[in-house]
Amino acid sequence: MEKKYRVAIVGATGAVGEKMKEQLEKRQFPISSIKFLASKRSVGKEIFFQHHVHFVEEATPEAFEGIDIAFFSAGGSVSKELAKEAAKRGAVVIDNTSAFRMEPTIPLVVPEVNKKDLHSHQGIISNPNCSTIQLVCVLEPIRQALGLTKVIISTYQAVSGAGSIAVQELVAQNSSYGNRLSTKAEVLPVKSGSKHYPIAYNAIPQIDQFGEDGFTLEEWKMMNETKKILHDPTLAVSATCVRLPVVAGHSESVYIEIEKENCSVEEVKTIIQQAPGVQLLDNPAEQEYPMPLFSEGKDDVFVGRIRRDPANPKGFHLWIVADNLLKGAALNSIQIAEALMEEGLV
Amino acid sequence: MEKKYRVAIVGATGAVGEKMKEQLEKRQFPISSIKFLASKRSVGKEIFFQHHVHFVEEATPEAFEGIDIAFFSAGGSVSKELAKEAAKRGAVVIDNTSAFRMEPTIPLVVPEVNKKDLHSHQGIISNPNCSTIQLVCVLEPIRQALGLTKVIISTYQAVSGAGSIAVQELVAQNSSYGNRLSTKAEVLPVKSGSKHYPIAYNAIPQIDQFGEDGFTLEEWKMMNETKKILHDPTLAVSATCVRLPVVAGHSESVYIEIEKENCSVEEVKTIIQQAPGVQLLDNPAEQEYPMPLFSEGKDDVFVGRIRRDPANPKGFHLWIVADNLLKGAALNSIQIAEALMEEGLV
Repeated sequence: MEKKYRVAIVGATGAVGEKMKEQLEKRQFPISSIKFLASKRSVGKEIFFQHHVHFVEEATPEAFEGIDIAFFSAGGSVSKELAKEAAKRGAVVIDNTSAFRMEPTIPLVVPEVNKKDLHSHQGIISNPNCSTIQLVCVLEPIRQALGLTKVIISTYQAVSGAGSIAVQELVAQNSSYGNRLSTKAEVLPVKSGSKHYPIAYNAIPQIDQFGEDGFTLEEWKMMNETKKILHDPTLAVSATCVRLPVVAGHSESVYIEIEKENCSVEEVKTIIQQAPGVQLLDNPAEQEYPMPLFSEGKDDVFVGRIRRDPANPKGFHLWIVADNLLKGAALNSIQIAEALMEEGLV
Repeated sequence: MEKKYRVAIVGATGAVGEKMKEQLEKRQFPISSIKFLASKRSVGKEIFFQHHVHFVEEATPEAFEGIDIAFFSAGGSVSKELAKEAAKRGAVVIDNTSAFRMEPTIPLVVPEVNKKDLHSHQGIISNPNCSTIQLVCVLEPIRQALGLTKVIISTYQAVSGAGSIAVQELVAQNSSYGNRLSTKAEVLPVKSGSKHYPIAYNAIPQIDQFGEDGFTLEEWKMMNETKKILHDPTLAVSATCVRLPVVAGHSESVYIEIEKENCSVEEVKTIIQQAPGVQLLDNPAEQEYPMPLFSEGKDDVFVGRIRRDPANPKGFHLWIVADNLLKGAALNSIQIAEALMEEGLV
């Protein structure tokens, strides 16, 4: 008989928590019991799961007693407070926040890329940043086949990455077009920041707070997480992250330099076609290329606009799009749990 | 007494034609007479200019008799048909279309960058593509001071570059959020193309038709025009052009490699601060950086997010934003005319 698991979702009422619940249902994850946990103010809220009503319970250390797998997506501070408590009680934590991603002893996993890293887990596994996940799904097969020396990324990121309140704000702003500059803005680019800008009819070159050397934390996450997941600390990666008036689907304009000489565009396309979790969508004659609007609700990472830099035979452009709440967050977390099952680690 | 000019605007009823008219008024261009020309179906339409009503006349070869300066912005086919007719009749043509930009004998001019090229004109001067103009305003002072070896661009372009109909379509689509995937799309990415996609809540990685080697014509324009304007045919330039749900203001994420060793970010900032027509807007601590929504109606090119590639001491990121209908089109055309006056060429 198939083994079944006692599962908890922490941050059950958030945008990613909601998608995690949907993914568990859709993928028929083998569940024997499920707990929906959140902060005190959501306690008692109803959640429908597999045709039954569940009630949100408070996320406390004791709530993790008897849990096998705990999905965390309630912000870094909640993970810092409770992930170790859950692990101590025997749960394997799959954490969707940035709390532990760069800790050397904690695996940072995209199953298609580095499933083997799961074997070293000590109770907590980190789910990478949304914009990193879709990138490494494409970079790793290229790196293995052609060698990879340089990556320059410009992102085009959806507001749902900043939570449901950011989506609501965009939709409200879009309805007040006549009055663009006086549009109310309270969420983006960073809710806790001192300044907010409208995202409707705009592009904001700031995601998360600013960190060292003029890069934002989102940019540092992409650069550092990519190197950790690919086990290539000397890979040259540099990123610019930009928020768009798009609800769902992150897009990335990615420039790579490979090691292999005389590599054709067709060769790159074949590698991408064969990559797990990745779909090639690249037919200029038919105007076929990935777009965020059409990535919504889809599991795969889509790649198109593949072409060689006319000035550099080892330089290639890629356009990479994925649903940031699915492969970029909830789906990858569930896939980590599935990989743990496959590897006999849970 | 100041010399005054007999001026014509061809494509007077279009989005750029309208901005040209506004710029002539705002900049008090020395006009003795003005003609508004367009296709047959716009003949008789009223246009207000300097407190007087003017009527649109048909753009025919004879309409250019007695004209000193003719601004063309009615599409490439109109320029190909009439620009030489106008020049033959003694007008200096300033052409905002791509019709003649890459012809070796026709100057392609951004006054802050290559005003001297005007001296070789033979009746027609080309105004570069919108996304090229704002780029070269920033690249040229860097190239002169630090040397420039490589440029990789990802654009974030406004729909107004595709005309007023594209703006109307975006606004209409934004008002039907609940029904995103079935939104009516008839204009973008290319009106005459066989497929159209919604731009609201989307990003379309196609501007203009596809050309050779998987690049769009917009991308080829950026690459080829940049090299021509900078007089640097071997400069390594490669571009990805993307349309956004933004009405006005093109943004560009630009990665450059310079020749100079040990150049600091401060040195790059100083060069940009001193560049004509360019404004440095780069203060992460105060969340200050250029954004398309705030570039609308402004003459300058704005630059921010300047930082060094952590993996390459000669690599720098720039974020460049300008109003695509002003510096990217109408304003630059009028500035070309002003430069012709300054240089005694008209």
